[in-house]
Amino acid sequence: MLNIRTDLALEARELYKQDARQEAEVPGVEVETDGQEELSVTRVRITSEEGSNAMGKAMGNYITIEVPGLKNKDQDLQEDVCRVVAKELLNVVKIGKEATVLVVGLGNWNVTPDALGPKVISSLMVTRHLLEYVPEQIDKGVRPVCAVAPGVLGLTGIETGEIIKGIVDRLKPSLVIAIDALASRRMDRISTTIQIADTGINPGSGVGNKRMGLTVQTLGVPVIAIGVPMVVDAATMANDTIDLMIDAMLAQMEQGSAFYETLKNMDKNEKYTLIQQILSPYVGNLMVTPKEIDTIIEDVSKIVANGINIALHEGINLDDVNRYVH
Amino acid sequence: MLNIRTDLALEARELYKQDARQEAEVPGVEVETDGQEELSVTRVRITSEEGSNAMGKAMGNYITIEVPGLKNKDQDLQEDVCRVVAKELLNVVKIGKEATVLVVGLGNWNVTPDALGPKVISSLMVTRHLLEYVPEQIDKGVRPVCAVAPGVLGLTGIETGEIIKGIVDRLKPSLVIAIDALASRRMDRISTTIQIADTGINPGSGVGNKRMGLTVQTLGVPVIAIGVPMVVDAATMANDTIDLMIDAMLAQMEQGSAFYETLKNMDKNEKYTLIQQILSPYVGNLMVTPKEIDTIIEDVSKIVANGINIALHEGINLDDVNRYVH
Amino acid sequence: MLNIRTDLALEARELYKQDARQEAEVPGVEVETDGQEELSVTRVRITSEEGSNAMGKAMGNYITIEVPGLKNKDQDLQEDVCRVVAKELLNVVKIGKEATVLVVGLGNWNVTPDALGPKVISSLMVTRHLLEYVPEQIDKGVRPVCAVAPGVLGLTGIETGEIIKGIVDRLKPSLVIAIDALASRRMDRISTTIQIADTGINPGSGVGNKRMGLTVQTLGVPVIAIGVPMVVDAATMANDTIDLMIDAMLAQMEQGSAFYETLKNMDKNEKYTLIQQILSPYVGNLMVTPKEIDTIIEDVSKIVANGINIALHEGINLDDVNRYVH
Amino acid sequence: MLNIRTDLALEARELYKQDARQEAEVPGVEVETDGQEELSVTRVRITSEEGSNAMGKAMGNYITIEVPGLKNKDQDLQEDVCRVVAKELLNVVKIGKEATVLVVGLGNWNVTPDALGPKVISSLMVTRHLLEYVPEQIDKGVRPVCAVAPGVLGLTGIETGEIIKGIVDRLKPSLVIAIDALASRRMDRISTTIQIADTGINPGSGVGNKRMGLTVQTLGVPVIAIGVPMVVDAATMANDTIDLMIDAMLAQMEQGSAFYETLKNMDKNEKYTLIQQILSPYVGNLMVTPKEIDTIIEDVSKIVANGINIALHEGINLDDVNRYVH
Repeated sequence: MLNIRTDLALEARELYKQDARQEAEVPGVEVETDGQEELSVTRVRITSEEGSNAMGKAMGNYITIEVPGLKNKDQDLQEDVCRVVAKELLNVVKIGKEATVLVVGLGNWNVTPDALGPKVISSLMVTRHLLEYVPEQIDKGVRPVCAVAPGVLGLTGIETGEIIKGIVDRLKPSLVIAIDALASRRMDRISTTIQIADTGINPGSGVGNKRMGLTVQTLGVPVIAIGVPMVVDAATMANDTIDLMIDAMLAQMEQGSAFYETLKNMDKNEKYTLIQQILSPYVGNLMVTPKEIDTIIEDVSKIVANGINIALHEGINLDDVNRYVH
Repeated sequence: MLNIRTDLALEARELYKQDARQEAEVPGVEVETDGQEELSVTRVRITSEEGSNAMGKAMGNYITIEVPGLKNKDQDLQEDVCRVVAKELLNVVKIGKEATVLVVGLGNWNVTPDALGPKVISSLMVTRHLLEYVPEQIDKGVRPVCAVAPGVLGLTGIETGEIIKGIVDRLKPSLVIAIDALASRRMDRISTTIQIADTGINPGSGVGNKRMGLTVQTLGVPVIAIGVPMVVDAATMANDTIDLMIDAMLAQMEQGSAFYETLKNMDKNEKYTLIQQILSPYVGNLMVTPKEIDTIIEDVSKIVANGINIALHEGINLDDVNRYVH
Repeated sequence: MLNIRTDLALEARELYKQDARQEAEVPGVEVETDGQEELSVTRVRITSEEGSNAMGKAMGNYITIEVPGLKNKDQDLQEDVCRVVAKELLNVVKIGKEATVLVVGLGNWNVTPDALGPKVISSLMVTRHLLEYVPEQIDKGVRPVCAVAPGVLGLTGIETGEIIKGIVDRLKPSLVIAIDALASRRMDRISTTIQIADTGINPGSGVGNKRMGLTVQTLGVPVIAIGVPMVVDAATMANDTIDLMIDAMLAQMEQGSAFYETLKNMDKNEKYTLIQQILSPYVGNLMVTPKEIDTIIEDVSKIVANGINIALHEGINLDDVNRYVH
Repeated sequence: MLNIRTDLALEARELYKQDARQEAEVPGVEVETDGQEELSVTRVRITSEEGSNAMGKAMGNYITIEVPGLKNKDQDLQEDVCRVVAKELLNVVKIGKEATVLVVGLGNWNVTPDALGPKVISSLMVTRHLLEYVPEQIDKGVRPVCAVAPGVLGLTGIETGEIIKGIVDRLKPSLVIAIDALASRRMDRISTTIQIADTGINPGSGVGNKRMGLTVQTLGVPVIAIGVPMVVDAATMANDTIDLMIDAMLAQMEQGSAFYETLKNMDKNEKYTLIQQILSPYVGNLMVTPKEIDTIIEDVSKIVANGINIALHEGINLDDVNRYVH
C-alpha cells in the first residue's frame, strides 16, 4: 500500500538493508565501488531472482555515477562526467561499430522536471539520415544514430512502449538507449547522480507511470536505460520525514517503555493514513523538485547527450560534437 | 527542372488548364463546386491515370474549402468552418463509430510555418487511453482517437513514413488522418483554404520534403490528409512574377513582332536560370510566409482540430470539446 | 528560522488561529464568506497594523474564491468561475472605463509550476496598440490593456520590480494587475483557489523570490494581485507532516506523562533540524507539485485570463474573447 | 511607394550606386574593407547628412562581417567569428570595464525567423544580479550585464521602444546593445552576414516594424545594434526578379528600339502594380526565409551571444562561457 519509490538500484539496496537492519550484502547482489567522493562509480549487479525480488529491480547491471559537485556549474567537471558516462556506457554497449542505435527520450516536455528525455534528444548527434543521404559529408567513425521523443500517454493516447515497439520492429536497430527522469529518495541526488542500466526500463519506473516496459523482452533488442533523478516522490518524502521523526524521538526515550514500543512498531497502515492526509487529493502523484529545475535540466541533458555522443561514435570527441547537433 | 510547386489539387488543375490554354476540364478529372464566395467547397475527383498524370496528383477525392474571411479573426465564421470541415470529413471517413483513428501531425514544431501538424495535435481530443483505462468517465459517442507528432527527418534521423508505418503496424487503427502545412501558389490562399484528400500524403508534398508517402498502399489502412497552405514556395513566386511580367509586356507589344515571339516562347531553362540567380544558394528551399504566421497558425490549428474533434466523435459538439483537450 | 510559507491570506489566518489556539477572529481582521462549498468566496480584510503583523500580510482586501471542482475539467464550471473572478475583480478595480491597465505576468516560463503569469498573458486581450493604431476596428466598451511577462531575476539580471517600475513610470497606466503562481499550505488548494488582493505583491510572495514589491507604494499606481496556488513549499509540507505526526501520537498518549509534555513542547529548532535533514541541500528552495501540472496550468491560466478579459472590457463577454486573443 | 527594403548599410550603398549608375563612392560615405573572401570586414562610415539621406541610414559606423562559410556547421569557423564579433564590438564599446550593459533581444519568439534577439538573450552571460548578491562567486574581469527580450507590439500592446526606455531610465546602464533579425536583399546573406552599428536601431528596421527607435537620442545612452539577416522581404525579391528579367531582356534586344526604351524606362508604378498582384493580400508583410531556419537561428544566436560574452567581460574567454549561461 505504501510504496517508497526510488528508481535507483543503489537506493533500493540501501532500503533493503535498512529494513532488514543488516550490514551484509543483499543476497544475489554484488556491489563494487570506484573513485572518490567527488566522482564515484558504484556497480550493482543483481545476479539472481532472489536478489531481484529483494531489490524490486530486474536482474542485470546498474552503474551509478555520483558527482555531488555537479550542482555547481563547473564546465571542466561537466566534461569529465561526460567522459565517465561515455566510458561506462561503452562497457555495456556490445554491438558493432557500424550498428544502428535508436535513442528514446522519455517523459513529458511540458513538465520541466519530466523533460530530461526530450531535452537529451535535442542535444544528440542524429546521423542515420546523413549516412544514408549524404555519406560523403560524414566523418569516419560515425555510426547511424536516430532518436525519438514519443511524448506521454496523456498527450498521445498510446503507451510509450507501444510506440517504441512499433518503431523498433520497423527500423530494427541493434540497440535502444532510453533516457528518463528518475525519482530518487534523497534530495541531494537530484541532478548529481546518473544511473546506467543494461536492464532497460521496467513498468512503473521514471517520473511518469509507464505500463509497458522497454526491455529486451518487449522490444527484442537490448535496451540500455540512462536516468538522472530530477524529483523525489512526495509520498516518499513524507514517509522519510515520519521515519526521521520516529528515530529522533526514540533516541530521546527510555528503551522498553510502553510508548517506545508503540512508536517502534508503528505500522505501515498508520503511516500511510498520515501521508494520505498530507498529500490528499494527490497521494501518489506529487513530486518534490528544486525551483531552479530549468537550469538543472539544461545542464544535465547536455552532459548525458554528450556522454552518449562520444560513446557511440568512435571518431568523435567533445570538440567535434557541435558540428552535428542541430 | 523548374518545378512550380503547389500542394493543392485545385491549383494543379488551374496550372494544367493554363499551360494547355484550354477551358475544357482536365481529362480524367471531375469538378463540382458548392457554396458562395464567402465559403465555397470545391470537390475535385481524379478518376483515371490520365487525370493523375495531368495533375501530378494521385487518383482520389480532393475537397477544398475556401474561406477568404478566415484572415480576419471572426469567431462565428471560424466555428462555421469547423462544422464544414467536420461535415466534409464525415463524407470521406468510412469506418465504424467505435473504430480507432490515429491522427498524425506532420511538420517541424521549431519552424513556425511548418508547425501546423504538431499544433493541431495539441488541440485534439485524445481519448484512446481514457476509453481503455477509465471508460466510465467518458461520454457516449466518443471513439478511441490517438495522436502523434513524429518530428522531421532532421530531428529524428528517421523518415516520418517509417515511424508512422511502425506505429500503424503495431496499433492497427482503422484510419489515419495526417495533418500538414502546405505550399500553395497564391498568397491569398495562405490560411484561408483547407484541403481534405482521401489519397493520403504522397512523397514530396507538404512544406518539408518527405520521401516516403503516407497512403493506404504504404500503411495498409486508409489515410485522409488535411492540409492548409502556410507558405508559397519562393521559386514558384519568382516564376509567377516572371510570367506576370511577360504577360504585362506582351499586352503592350505589337503581336507578331520579333520580340513578341521571343518573349512568348521564353523557355523554361531561361526562366530557371533567372530564378536560380535570385534564390541562390537556396533555390528549392525557400518559403514565403506572412510575418504574423504565429497567430495565423494558432487560429487555423484550432479550426482543423475542432473540425476533426466533432467529426470523429458522434456525441461531441463544439461546446464539449474543451473538457477533453489537455 | 522556520518559515511556514503560505501566500494565501486565508491560510495565514488559519495558521494564526491555530498557533494561538483560539476560536476568536484575529484582531484587526474581518472575515466574510459567501456561496456554498462548491464555489465559495471568502473576503478577508486586514484593517489595522496589528492585524497586518498577526497575519504577516499587508493591510487591505484579500478575496479568495474556492472551487474544489476545478480539479475536474468541467467547462461550464470553468466559465462560471471566469464570471466570479470578473465580478470580484470589478469590486476592487476603481478606475474609469477608458483608463489603461497594465497586466504583469510574473514567474519563470521555463519552470512549469511557476509559469502561470506568462501563460495568463498569452491568453489576454491586449488592446492598447489596436485602440491607438486601428481604433475603427475595435468594439465599443473595450479599454486599453497592455501586458508584459518580464521574466525572473536569473534570466534578466534585473529585479522584476525594477523592470515594472520602469515601464509603469513610462506608460503611466491607471492600474497594474499582477498575476503570480502561489504557494499554499495544502495540496487540495492547488489550482482550486484563486486569490485577488488589492494590496499588490509584497516581497517574498509567489513561487520565486522577489525582493522588491509591486505595490501602490513602489509603483505609484494601484496594484491588484491575482494568484493561484500551484505548489506547496516542501519545508511547509515537512513541517505539517511532523505536526500531524505529533498530534497523532499525542492522541494516543496519556496526558501529563513526561513524554507527552516533551512532545507537546517540541520546539521550532528541533523541527527545523529535522526538516533540514530531509530537504538538504535545498531547504527553502523545493516545491511540491502535481505531475499533471502542465494541464492544470493550461486550464487555470485561461480561467484567470478570461476573468480579467470580461472584467476590464465592459463591451466584451466570454463569447467575444477569442477575436482579440492572438 | 515601392520600398526596396534592406537593413544592411552595405546593401543600401550598393543600391544607391546602382540607381545612380556610378562607380564613385556615395558622397558623405567612407568605406574600408579588411580580410579575405572567407571572412571579410567592411566598415561603412556615414559622415554627413548628405550621406545619411543618400543611404537612408543614420550617420555613424556600420561594420559588416561577411562569412559565406557560416552556412556550413564548422565549429572552428564559428569560434573564429565569435572572436571577430568580439573584436569589432570592442572597437565601438567605449565604456569603463565595470560599467553596466543592458542587452535587448528584439523580435517575436513565436516566429522562427524573427526570434534571433530572444535566442541570443538565452545564451547570454547575465551577471548583474550575481555581482550584486553573490559577488564572491564571480570571477575577476566580469562586468554587470543584464538582458531583456521585451516581445513585440502585438503581444504586449506597447512599443518596444517604450518598454526599453522605461527600463533604461530606471536602471541607467552605460550602454545598450540591441539584437535584431534583419532583412537583406540577397538570399546568400541570410545567416552569413553580421552587422554591428553604433547608431542604434531606427524606426522601421528589423523584420518586424518598430515605430520608436532605440538610439542615444531616444534612450539617452549609447546604443549598439547587432543584426543578422534572416529573411529577404518578399516585395524586394519580387522587385529584384523583375529587374533581373528586364536586364536579361535588354541584353537580347536591339538598343534604341522602341520597346527597348519602354522597358528601360518601366517606371516604379508599373513595377509596384505587378508586385502587388503577386503578393496580395499581404504586400509589405511577407518574408522569404529558408526552410531550415530553426537550425540556422540556433547556430547564429550562439555566435552572436558568445561574441558579446567575450567582448563585454575582460576576464572571460570562450571556454569559460558555459559556467555563466543558464
